[in-house]
Amino acid sequence: MAVSIRQDRITGVLAPVLTPFDRTLAPDPKRFVAFCRVLRQLDIGLAPFGTTSEGNSLDGGEKLELLDALAADGTDMARVMPGTGTCSIVETARLSAHATRLGCGGVLMLPPFYYKGVSDDGLFRAFSEVIQRVGSRSLRVYLYHFPRQSQTPIPLALIERLLKEYPGTVAGIKDSSGEFANMQAMLKAFPGFDVFTGTEALMLPVLQAGGAGCISANANVNGAAMVELFRRWRAPEAAELQEALTAFRVAIQDFPLIAALKALVARASGDQNWRATRPPLLDLSLDAEDQLIKRLEKAGFPV
Amino acid sequence: MAVSIRQDRITGVLAPVLTPFDRTLAPDPKRFVAFCRVLRQLDIGLAPFGTTSEGNSLDGGEKLELLDALAADGTDMARVMPGTGTCSIVETARLSAHATRLGCGGVLMLPPFYYKGVSDDGLFRAFSEVIQRVGSRSLRVYLYHFPRQSQTPIPLALIERLLKEYPGTVAGIKDSSGEFANMQAMLKAFPGFDVFTGTEALMLPVLQAGGAGCISANANVNGAAMVELFRRWRAPEAAELQEALTAFRVAIQDFPLIAALKALVARASGDQNWRATRPPLLDLSLDAEDQLIKRLEKAGFPV
Repeated sequence: MAVSIRQDRITGVLAPVLTPFDRTLAPDPKRFVAFCRVLRQLDIGLAPFGTTSEGNSLDGGEKLELLDALAADGTDMARVMPGTGTCSIVETARLSAHATRLGCGGVLMLPPFYYKGVSDDGLFRAFSEVIQRVGSRSLRVYLYHFPRQSQTPIPLALIERLLKEYPGTVAGIKDSSGEFANMQAMLKAFPGFDVFTGTEALMLPVLQAGGAGCISANANVNGAAMVELFRRWRAPEAAELQEALTAFRVAIQDFPLIAALKALVARASGDQNWRATRPPLLDLSLDAEDQLIKRLEKAGFPV
Repeated sequence: MAVSIRQDRITGVLAPVLTPFDRTLAPDPKRFVAFCRVLRQLDIGLAPFGTTSEGNSLDGGEKLELLDALAADGTDMARVMPGTGTCSIVETARLSAHATRLGCGGVLMLPPFYYKGVSDDGLFRAFSEVIQRVGSRSLRVYLYHFPRQSQTPIPLALIERLLKEYPGTVAGIKDSSGEFANMQAMLKAFPGFDVFTGTEALMLPVLQAGGAGCISANANVNGAAMVELFRRWRAPEAAELQEALTAFRVAIQDFPLIAALKALVARASGDQNWRATRPPLLDLSLDAEDQLIKRLEKAGFPV
């Protein structure tokens, strides 16, 4: 099984689930749940409200509604790791508590990201406040390290303090820095700390170094191939599987990623409403979509 | 009058009002309203939920509650310009609509700031969606240009498009870039567009260039002196008044600004609870407070 509990923890491949909007740009719980079902059938775990999900473009109520819809659909919530990190510790705690009550296997927590250049002490205080406000032994926090987007990196010294203060609760990290050396350093320094690579281009080396899996945007459309690598990363064909994942990523990476992924889902599902993004993003132009399709076909991924 | 309506617009000195927290780090509407009264008695306008207010560290409900408390206190809401810009256009529209219904003279709107490197088209779409959702002729939008903090600058080309599409609604800007050339360029390019400097160190030159006023953190503790300059900027003593404003700013600028301002308000009011900041910020250490006091005294500002 691609997403499995190892020592009561999520591992494997998770998709930061794309958020479907209706014509008024409101999130559509029905299409969201239907899309999540497809992902789950492929053994892909669910990380809604991530960067790719336009999570921070949703308000708190919208996130609660989508999460409730997922639970109401009978989803195995142990395979769900929603993004809960916002600029406000109060809102982050509220979302994290709700997710924990619903039985989510973990929450993916951005640090508060409005103020730049904040101290490690300040970030420690932020995560501490949230953990204490949730106040549940069932809470599993996965830190979200995405320096380019949040401009608020999570250094190893901070992780060390958090692990010491909240063992069992601080469970792992999604590292979207793209820096293998950072993932390697965390795996070496913190045994039992689950490191997920944010790019599937590093999936094999991260698994070989003891990583827990991969949470990547492209899992929304190319997740089955990632699951395949997760299942067979010790097999001789692993290098070839990795090569194919990287080729897909290279083919799509020159396009605005979220809009491109939504266009691909629209194409695959025949539902053009899937193309819609919320501002400040823009929907993929039809020209760019044509180019994307050609690029993917050329790279060996007929769409 | 320092804060006056010029052509139905706010001008003068506004304070990004510090937010008082209680021991549980919840905002305290009573102390907030009391502090706002003090500012208003000094003829200082109110810009709550700005960067200095830890506005983005509050959740939407907390902001609505504080704004309602201000209205319930009989505040002249035409002198209030709350910060309403968040990462979510839905939440930004909700706060902006509420502020407009309460009669606020304007709203100070950060662009959505999670995604970095977004296009001007995307930002135009974001502001457009919010303006259309509010759908009120009473809405006055002041753009909030703070590249260092939001990492999402508001270029002149975008302002030009917005002014063309939403004349009367897009009313001005708070420019916290600290770049006089940018403020000058806007004043030259957009007659009738109200430019507020985000630093009082540029207040006199900005007023001389036709600017509308100043919205600065230090107005929370040194606002009376700013009001004095606003009243007398054409008088011979204006340069001297400007010099004193700049000296105060220089004396405080090496300290973590929000925590330092809160410590000063705590000292002035005798209410030590004022020292509290929300994570990821840290309260000012007592050592740093001692240094701050000495520094201010040395600069000619006995505390």
